[in-house]
Amino acid sequence: MTVSYTLEVADARFCGFSKLLFRWKGSIYRLLYKDVLVFCGVYLFFSVFYRFILTPKQQDLFERISLYCDQFTNTNFIPVLFVLGFYVTLAFNRWWGQYTSFPLPDNLMMVVSGNVHGADERGRLLRRTLMRYANLSSVLILRSISTRVHKRFPTLEHIVEAGFMTTQELKKFESLHSDFNKYWMPLTWFSNLASRAREEGRVRDDIALGLLMDELNKYRGKCSLLFHYDWISIPLVYTQVVTLAVYSYFAFCVIGRQFLNPEKGYKDHKLDMYVPVFTLLQFFFYTGWLKVGELIINPFGEDDDDFETNQLIDRNIQVSMLAVDDMYQNLAPIVKDKHWA
Amino acid sequence: MTVSYTLEVADARFCGFSKLLFRWKGSIYRLLYKDVLVFCGVYLFFSVFYRFILTPKQQDLFERISLYCDQFTNTNFIPVLFVLGFYVTLAFNRWWGQYTSFPLPDNLMMVVSGNVHGADERGRLLRRTLMRYANLSSVLILRSISTRVHKRFPTLEHIVEAGFMTTQELKKFESLHSDFNKYWMPLTWFSNLASRAREEGRVRDDIALGLLMDELNKYRGKCSLLFHYDWISIPLVYTQVVTLAVYSYFAFCVIGRQFLNPEKGYKDHKLDMYVPVFTLLQFFFYTGWLKVGELIINPFGEDDDDFETNQLIDRNIQVSMLAVDDMYQNLAPIVKDKHWA
Amino acid sequence: MTVSYTLEVADARFCGFSKLLFRWKGSIYRLLYKDVLVFCGVYLFFSVFYRFILTPKQQDLFERISLYCDQFTNTNFIPVLFVLGFYVTLAFNRWWGQYTSFPLPDNLMMVVSGNVHGADERGRLLRRTLMRYANLSSVLILRSISTRVHKRFPTLEHIVEAGFMTTQELKKFESLHSDFNKYWMPLTWFSNLASRAREEGRVRDDIALGLLMDELNKYRGKCSLLFHYDWISIPLVYTQVVTLAVYSYFAFCVIGRQFLNPEKGYKDHKLDMYVPVFTLLQFFFYTGWLKVGELIINPFGEDDDDFETNQLIDRNIQVSMLAVDDMYQNLAPIVKDKHWA
Amino acid sequence: MTVSYTLEVADARFCGFSKLLFRWKGSIYRLLYKDVLVFCGVYLFFSVFYRFILTPKQQDLFERISLYCDQFTNTNFIPVLFVLGFYVTLAFNRWWGQYTSFPLPDNLMMVVSGNVHGADERGRLLRRTLMRYANLSSVLILRSISTRVHKRFPTLEHIVEAGFMTTQELKKFESLHSDFNKYWMPLTWFSNLASRAREEGRVRDDIALGLLMDELNKYRGKCSLLFHYDWISIPLVYTQVVTLAVYSYFAFCVIGRQFLNPEKGYKDHKLDMYVPVFTLLQFFFYTGWLKVGELIINPFGEDDDDFETNQLIDRNIQVSMLAVDDMYQNLAPIVKDKHWA
Amino acid sequence: MTVSYTLEVADARFCGFSKLLFRWKGSIYRLLYKDVLVFCGVYLFFSVFYRFILTPKQQDLFERISLYCDQFTNTNFIPVLFVLGFYVTLAFNRWWGQYTSFPLPDNLMMVVSGNVHGADERGRLLRRTLMRYANLSSVLILRSISTRVHKRFPTLEHIVEAGFMTTQELKKFESLHSDFNKYWMPLTWFSNLASRAREEGRVRDDIALGLLMDELNKYRGKCSLLFHYDWISIPLVYTQVVTLAVYSYFAFCVIGRQFLNPEKGYKDHKLDMYVPVFTLLQFFFYTGWLKVGELIINPFGEDDDDFETNQLIDRNIQVSMLAVDDMYQNLAPIVKDKHWA
Repeated sequence: MTVSYTLEVADARFCGFSKLLFRWKGSIYRLLYKDVLVFCGVYLFFSVFYRFILTPKQQDLFERISLYCDQFTNTNFIPVLFVLGFYVTLAFNRWWGQYTSFPLPDNLMMVVSGNVHGADERGRLLRRTLMRYANLSSVLILRSISTRVHKRFPTLEHIVEAGFMTTQELKKFESLHSDFNKYWMPLTWFSNLASRAREEGRVRDDIALGLLMDELNKYRGKCSLLFHYDWISIPLVYTQVVTLAVYSYFAFCVIGRQFLNPEKGYKDHKLDMYVPVFTLLQFFFYTGWLKVGELIINPFGEDDDDFETNQLIDRNIQVSMLAVDDMYQNLAPIVKDKHWA
Repeated sequence: MTVSYTLEVADARFCGFSKLLFRWKGSIYRLLYKDVLVFCGVYLFFSVFYRFILTPKQQDLFERISLYCDQFTNTNFIPVLFVLGFYVTLAFNRWWGQYTSFPLPDNLMMVVSGNVHGADERGRLLRRTLMRYANLSSVLILRSISTRVHKRFPTLEHIVEAGFMTTQELKKFESLHSDFNKYWMPLTWFSNLASRAREEGRVRDDIALGLLMDELNKYRGKCSLLFHYDWISIPLVYTQVVTLAVYSYFAFCVIGRQFLNPEKGYKDHKLDMYVPVFTLLQFFFYTGWLKVGELIINPFGEDDDDFETNQLIDRNIQVSMLAVDDMYQNLAPIVKDKHWA
Repeated sequence: MTVSYTLEVADARFCGFSKLLFRWKGSIYRLLYKDVLVFCGVYLFFSVFYRFILTPKQQDLFERISLYCDQFTNTNFIPVLFVLGFYVTLAFNRWWGQYTSFPLPDNLMMVVSGNVHGADERGRLLRRTLMRYANLSSVLILRSISTRVHKRFPTLEHIVEAGFMTTQELKKFESLHSDFNKYWMPLTWFSNLASRAREEGRVRDDIALGLLMDELNKYRGKCSLLFHYDWISIPLVYTQVVTLAVYSYFAFCVIGRQFLNPEKGYKDHKLDMYVPVFTLLQFFFYTGWLKVGELIINPFGEDDDDFETNQLIDRNIQVSMLAVDDMYQNLAPIVKDKHWA
Repeated sequence: MTVSYTLEVADARFCGFSKLLFRWKGSIYRLLYKDVLVFCGVYLFFSVFYRFILTPKQQDLFERISLYCDQFTNTNFIPVLFVLGFYVTLAFNRWWGQYTSFPLPDNLMMVVSGNVHGADERGRLLRRTLMRYANLSSVLILRSISTRVHKRFPTLEHIVEAGFMTTQELKKFESLHSDFNKYWMPLTWFSNLASRAREEGRVRDDIALGLLMDELNKYRGKCSLLFHYDWISIPLVYTQVVTLAVYSYFAFCVIGRQFLNPEKGYKDHKLDMYVPVFTLLQFFFYTGWLKVGELIINPFGEDDDDFETNQLIDRNIQVSMLAVDDMYQNLAPIVKDKHWA
Repeated sequence: MTVSYTLEVADARFCGFSKLLFRWKGSIYRLLYKDVLVFCGVYLFFSVFYRFILTPKQQDLFERISLYCDQFTNTNFIPVLFVLGFYVTLAFNRWWGQYTSFPLPDNLMMVVSGNVHGADERGRLLRRTLMRYANLSSVLILRSISTRVHKRFPTLEHIVEAGFMTTQELKKFESLHSDFNKYWMPLTWFSNLASRAREEGRVRDDIALGLLMDELNKYRGKCSLLFHYDWISIPLVYTQVVTLAVYSYFAFCVIGRQFLNPEKGYKDHKLDMYVPVFTLLQFFFYTGWLKVGELIINPFGEDDDDFETNQLIDRNIQVSMLAVDDMYQNLAPIVKDKHWA
């Protein structure tokens, strides 16, 4: 479920964001605690190894290796910061782009409700079928990109069962072979059915038909964009470079940030704190930032913070049907408003 | 209230922005003074603790811990700067996007005024009702995202009382059950009523009706965008990473920036100034930048600088009614202008 | 006046931009010279104070304070660079956004000229009045955001005098009370008048009327955007953080960058140059960058580089009238072109 | 083939991105291994040269040169990081812009299917030919920008053979001489044919024709944008600056990062590890980032991660023909849906 | 001529971008070699001055000044890097914005070809004249912003000669006085002529006229945008700050990076290499980046990499005439395609 928190921070008060830190659901702690434990474990292993197992001579070597590693983790040798900053910003823009590409039937349903006429059964049938086609199309596309939707509709039969499709439509759908996603088929049916409704006079004029086609194309454009967002990812190479940068940085930290014997007088090693607080903090921030990237690179997964695709599908079909059927020409009496003068 | 200051800095004069520094309302001082006081208090506590309470031996330990902390707060160990820069930039773009998504009825009212005809009561009724529906829709959406609007209209009855809705419309509205915001219902009423006005001949042709539907869809699109801006926040994880980075940085500064005994000759500790001017400045800037993020992440709160949603609602309904009612075909006589040749 | 210089640097030649450095008008020197003088004055004051007034013991203290300050101005303690970079980039995008929101009547006048017919007086009157309304609207909005336009039209009477409005229109305009800018009123008049022209048959068909309404809405959208750009500034808090960062940085430089007695052998203080060339350069660049921000945060002021709003208003009304009146159906004879084959 | 991996990282789990690191296809390893080998070879050469071939005196000189080089590779002398960051971000935005400019016939085919009527042979012929023209146009443009498509259609005859063009059309096409790409010709044929279909009454009204022209123009706009993305590259100068920055940085690393004799006690040279792990990592990350730039600067090449242009061409023609021919008015019976009440 | 190189780097192969380094045309070497020579000359002058002309005592002073300068060129005192990065990114976005604003007649010519009917002389005349007006308008605007186009058409007579305008049109054009660019006049003629063609029945219905007006407005919008891109440059102040930052940085490098006598044992001055390789590299990269800015700030100059405006003008008029005249209703016979089933 999307984690909404803006209402809590509506006002920039004293210690504003601090209340956001004590949450578990959708939090960075939940995403990161396993990685932190692994990192601590490995660090501890080397710490024990160095302190209790190595001979003094081996310790000397370890210390030199550690100092050598530290030298590079202290300066900006591995460009973790920038690479992460640029990468997450790109991912974030994609993420929001994907969200705004989500096909909502609201505009379409208003045009259908206002332009496909008739309160009789045929009229209702036409309007409901048109909206069903539009919703079917978005279900087909979401099924291929969202793990949640795929789990809900593992086969096309499940879609038929859920009432988005009739069995005859399924046959027509399956009779056509294409290597690519066929999400556009129900939209072509929509176009054909609208054309037929015009012939039957249910759509009263060509301008109304034009409006329908226009909204249909906008709707299809969003489906198509969503499909391509999924198909064309951020180049794998970029993701690999970023991930390797972060991982290798901390691989060296595990050695380079060990507390060396303070008695040997190494520079900046005057205190043995056992727990490398700052390194842990660094790990927390950099890996946390990388996790942000992981989280938003595919917003159609099952993370706490991913889009609630299934609920949106339910909302869309419910609202579509209400708008074109129950609410069709169903108006409260038009009376003078309070401020009538 | 939104704090407008651009007129004061219209010209880039000598000491241009400096005059903006002496303001209290909507200022950084007002947002930050409590945090600064808390930070000073904690710093003072540790300062007194170190100077007067600890034994010399404990002081030695404290000094070493302090030096250890300082070592990390001086370099770029915790990537406060970049994380903040990227985060605030993202938040800023969202903030402006939210503002430009605010649904204004101006285009809609012009189309209604120009295309729904009749100076008689029925004509006025139609035009006023159409605009009332549009405004009602934006009130419904703003109620769910703006704390100020929610306070003004805690229940739907308050909306009825304010004249945005009749009791019969409220019944219709409540008879429909949906888990999601039903802000789109009045817009469907708008669509239905426009369709009825066309049948009555009040809207004279299909093209005019098309124009109405077009503007309606643009209006609905903005309502929808606003709803989604509120629903889909910047991932909580990102906000947490940024907040923790800033907070933990200053948690370590409280120890690491203590003035150690100058007599002990620690490097860079030759002067005991009691007040850590630079650390305070740093605190001021970094926390100030974070506050900017807090301020703009939800522009519909009650901060000095948040959008004046309630005033905008009043403006919108007032202007809508004026445009479609009082000003309907109410033109000054058309005379030759001054430069007629 | 806007300073245009791109033609001079059309070609990236040897020492390309260098010729831009020797300009006074609209230059950084003109914007900055006073600030530089003040900074030099303050620096000089402390310099004289340190060298000639303080006792040796006081000098010692001053030197320690100076070294302490210097320590922080040398490293990245105050995040001047990034804060400025992000801030100016945001301001720049706003600046260009504001410019492209400037309402130009060109599209509107072409549609009016092509669709409101009649070479007789009534036809001319209609076309001229329509365009006058459009221009009046932009004058009303610009008056509230541009200091230059406000100076030119301090009262509405000045607008009447300039021929943008008749006195009867002024009365109508003033009879309506609203707390918000009423720039939209003339556009409602436009809409009403276009509707009347359709009834009179001057606008021949509904599609032409639709075109008119469409362009009108685009025009109004730009006016509205401009109004909101002015109303909703970059949050004051952000501007204050940036300004304080720059100012406090240089406040410390004034102390920390003093040339200390080279004989005392302080690190990096082996040369007494009296004039702190680098600090001045730094002041120049950072304050210069801040000035860029000041300059572009309100492009409707009276800076050398601000938009020439008054000239644009003159151009717009002139061009509008020419296009819909003099040039109406005024075509050169249509003859075969040179390459006719 | 485009490498799609978002489904694998749909959830931000423990070690999220790590599974992406063990891939060969489309991976950074595949792109970079040759460069790494060359770099290692050159490094090794100098290492052997220094250790075994030089006389002690020459070694001293080499060591001084090495230290001198190292001094500059350690600090930010060559601004590799920023230049790369800004460059790759620009390239990335272009890359996505190019993808979204890819002309898809989906909207066009729906409008053709809904508005060009007749199930007879003439009707089918018209619809099929219209869609063929649209597809031909995109093939012509893609042939000039994608190496893969060029290999598939080295001459126009190949296009005829593939059925996108008839020989008579080819003759018409070749009879027109232009120095620029003639991809727009088939679209002009489309426009002419649509106009003829209107005359024949196959397109029933002017609004339908208007819809066709509208979608055609949007389609042409995308073809045109694609052409210009190819024509106007990121200025060569920018690419050269970035490439030279990265290459020269590592040219100096080859000398400056040699392990000098630890016995000579040079600073930071206390350990002889033979393999310069960190320099290799740096090489890996910086060159990897540059490779990302190379990869995305032309997404129409034959890299693993480039767009699958040929498959898209096949998909487009297949889908176009299906939609306007097989699926024309081919609807499943309209029956009540499951939730009919 | 625009330098196109993306085809050469279509695949990210081994040493991908390296082949781009060996080019002269449009290369960074060509842009920069003069500046490098000047820089070397000045450096050499000071080098000779220091080594051979100064007395030992003067040398001492020079060395101290040099060390003082070096101290500031080594750290980030002058924020060259960031200022350049932000500036070039802004300039780049403008550059691409300008390119995409280039008015192409392609959409317009298709609408004219499809909607202005008649294969007779009058029909041809109308279509050709309409397209001529559109092209004339873009020539007028390009003449004022592109040095190349201005050279080709130094006076309006040259435009007449080139066949874009008749002498009578020139008279009409000149009879109107305006302080601003009159590029919009031919477009008003277009609008008037289209309106006349409608009256003559050459444009068959109002919807077709609406389409024409719509495309005309889009075309005019691009002309207008281009005009404003030229008029409103990046504020001069910003360009000056950036240029001064780069120039002053290297002015100090000329002194601060001299090789001082290694015998005097100054820190980091143990090697006298005579040629300051790294400083040259720095000069190359920073100045190269600045050159990128110079190159793209006005893409309508005569640089190797600037837009080929004249060729585009030729292409546009040629293609316009072909499309509306030769190709008018000139279709290959419509036959069944290869895959007809």
